[in-house]
Amino acid sequence: MKFPLQRRPSGATVPWMGFVRRRREEWSWDGVTPRGYAGGAERHVLVGAADGATQVELRYFRIPAGGASVLERHPHEHAVLILHGQADVQLGDELHRVGPGDAVFVGSNEVHQLRAGSAEPLGFLCTAAVARLKGAPADSASAR
Amino acid sequence: MKFPLQRRPSGATVPWMGFVRRRREEWSWDGVTPRGYAGGAERHVLVGAADGATQVELRYFRIPAGGASVLERHPHEHAVLILHGQADVQLGDELHRVGPGDAVFVGSNEVHQLRAGSAEPLGFLCTAAVARLKGAPADSASAR
Repeated sequence: MKFPLQRRPSGATVPWMGFVRRRREEWSWDGVTPRGYAGGAERHVLVGAADGATQVELRYFRIPAGGASVLERHPHEHAVLILHGQADVQLGDELHRVGPGDAVFVGSNEVHQLRAGSAEPLGFLCTAAVARLKGAPADSASAR
Repeated sequence: MKFPLQRRPSGATVPWMGFVRRRREEWSWDGVTPRGYAGGAERHVLVGAADGATQVELRYFRIPAGGASVLERHPHEHAVLILHGQADVQLGDELHRVGPGDAVFVGSNEVHQLRAGSAEPLGFLCTAAVARLKGAPADSASAR
């Protein structure tokens, strides 16, 4: 894995500088425009390649009550933490009921889906390696 | 980045299977033994290499009120989300006051430290690439 230096606006080549992404009301953040999906789901990229991250992305997903993420599989792993709401998580052939504070690991190429409970929206943090964005077979526009 | 297949106990080589890590009372999880640090800080690895993760780690850190993480720099990036408490985050030469829901990105080789407020313990999620564990210069026993 490479740890590249980034060119800053001044033209000087120095290590990329970090930043703070402030939470606004509820689950939204300054400077983050949610991307919407069919069914009302939203993805908020808190830290991503567009911010200069080269290793790890951190995203917040919101799924409406009764909705679900796409049932999918891909080479990149996910580490997830449920923030609010309830979900049934499919991992391969297994289904797990989870709630706030529970963590979920999705293995490489494992079929997975998060289905929100009917009572309230589901919100979760989801990590993925930035490197998945380059050349992996599942890196279509729908890859999460 | 490689996406290796893992050998399961049965001996069959299949993609590694995910899992759920259930939250217990407060901020602790089934099957996760916190590692303690000087000053009372704790690291809880929710998803890590020991669990079969090969790409992304997800950890929870708890810093006592008035305490701080180690002031350090290393090649691996961090994406952080504050879960509870307040903190002053040092990123390079800058200091940022943050609270629950705020996200922080720590760039590669950026000096950083999280200092808990005096009123209550600080808790935050912190991600890092698993690959940092192999051969990077900063991968000493103290690397977080």
